[in-house]
Amino acid sequence: MEPPVVLVTSPMLAARQADWNLGYRLVTGDVTPEVAERVEVVVSGDSLSNALIDSLPRLKLVACFSTGYTGIDLAHLRRRAIALTTAAGVNAHDVADHAMALLLGWWHGIPSADRQVRSGGWRDTLPPRSSLRGRRAGVVGLGRIGHAIAQRLHSHEMPVRWWGPRDKPDVEWKRAESLLALAEWSDILIVASRADPQNAGQIDAAVLRALGAGGVLVNVSRGFLVDEGALIGALRDGLLGGAALDVFAAEPTDATLWSDVPNTLLSPHIAGFTREAGADMIAQLRENVRRYFAGEPLLTPVEDAA
Amino acid sequence: MEPPVVLVTSPMLAARQADWNLGYRLVTGDVTPEVAERVEVVVSGDSLSNALIDSLPRLKLVACFSTGYTGIDLAHLRRRAIALTTAAGVNAHDVADHAMALLLGWWHGIPSADRQVRSGGWRDTLPPRSSLRGRRAGVVGLGRIGHAIAQRLHSHEMPVRWWGPRDKPDVEWKRAESLLALAEWSDILIVASRADPQNAGQIDAAVLRALGAGGVLVNVSRGFLVDEGALIGALRDGLLGGAALDVFAAEPTDATLWSDVPNTLLSPHIAGFTREAGADMIAQLRENVRRYFAGEPLLTPVEDAA
Repeated sequence: MEPPVVLVTSPMLAARQADWNLGYRLVTGDVTPEVAERVEVVVSGDSLSNALIDSLPRLKLVACFSTGYTGIDLAHLRRRAIALTTAAGVNAHDVADHAMALLLGWWHGIPSADRQVRSGGWRDTLPPRSSLRGRRAGVVGLGRIGHAIAQRLHSHEMPVRWWGPRDKPDVEWKRAESLLALAEWSDILIVASRADPQNAGQIDAAVLRALGAGGVLVNVSRGFLVDEGALIGALRDGLLGGAALDVFAAEPTDATLWSDVPNTLLSPHIAGFTREAGADMIAQLRENVRRYFAGEPLLTPVEDAA
Repeated sequence: MEPPVVLVTSPMLAARQADWNLGYRLVTGDVTPEVAERVEVVVSGDSLSNALIDSLPRLKLVACFSTGYTGIDLAHLRRRAIALTTAAGVNAHDVADHAMALLLGWWHGIPSADRQVRSGGWRDTLPPRSSLRGRRAGVVGLGRIGHAIAQRLHSHEMPVRWWGPRDKPDVEWKRAESLLALAEWSDILIVASRADPQNAGQIDAAVLRALGAGGVLVNVSRGFLVDEGALIGALRDGLLGGAALDVFAAEPTDATLWSDVPNTLLSPHIAGFTREAGADMIAQLRENVRRYFAGEPLLTPVEDAA
């Protein structure tokens, strides 16, 4: 039997085929009509033309290397019942760790504590913090990242609830009735929603008001999920207790936007920025392609948002 | 029956007796010989004279409000079989949270990330970090604080081992054969040992060498447990990867000691410095006294170090 034919549109992935090729026949560059007839899988970067898709009658899977797939027409794939897999969640643990680094960094005042010692000061001019134990932590979006965050919060003896558009029956944490109800319940709200256009602006002025003057917002998903103007206003007016942000409406964010906004901790979109991420993304791509040919359920298919 | 007699040597605790008195007959100030005959419990601050102890023939418990008891002669109490309880471990969760804030703050470069964004920079000039998942975490001392730290580390998907002078059969984490073996195994070593003179200098040059150039030391216990000169030397020479410290050989620490020491994160002994700590210490004192009169095992007796 001839080996399966995999079309590789990304030169980087073709060059690293030893890392992910389990014995497929790889095709790169121009595709003859004869080969096009036999391609079942495309291994791609974050974009792929509909013309190419249309030239591959047996295409069943697009295995995208990256988390984002802005240059791939999902609706077009759906019409042909072609599956799409991505790197989604591959470094959920890294992103969750960073969410905790931001939360604890904010809560324990790590940058100012460090500055205080280095400037010859001591704790007498710092206010005592309040205990984290028992503070209520709400997680927005309970995908792989949100779940990893919830597990970490739980170890800090914090009650955890979550909200997402779809209920998840097997989850040990209680789902709030709405995003607004979650924000009202929470002392700390951590945004781990899917970076989907339909979630744009979901953390709006009403959610921030519900979180309140004692509340802290943490965002490790995407900046466009938060109404950044409303956020800055709420922090300035003391209507929100604080914010620890890895992502911004525009990136790099304009530093002057934040210069007089109190109680913020900022990082430059580094939540998933680890040395291991690239290799892990390759491994996940390999596993998705392997599962396809083995007839097993795909590891990280893009589902329709509810 | 007459209520039990409790002698209160701390004016602060006498003033706050409504918070902890469960119906005892309280005695403060000078003690008549008649009353001295009947005192079974002393509620104290961190010091108590042997002369007073000797004047109380039926004394069975000294319930000390604070964690430290430097002004109480433990050997003298032992000779009379008088128990001593303290605030030890009362804010183990706070200290454990701070250990994680230091570890994650160091690992994720939180102070420099924050400075980077505020100065108009972005992540392109920061090196990617390595993933925390899978890094080996060693906990020195598995008392209440060490255990709370281990639980948190575990949630970050890190293998955990520990070392302490006494084995603990019910513990789920593996005990290393020695402190040196733990340091050799660990990528991250977190010091949560008992602040006991016999542990002084336990983190010495050999332990730091075993932890190595890729290793990070976190200390939330006491500065005297670490050979600070050896630590600074190892960091300067690149023989140790980094250090995140809440405690120092002398406090406040001299800022110039640290000004040219690379890869450090410092905080001014704030691990247990929370608004809730005082009330929690009172509650623990009340519980120890209650247990004594109820004939139940004390909550936090000072044990002999093994």
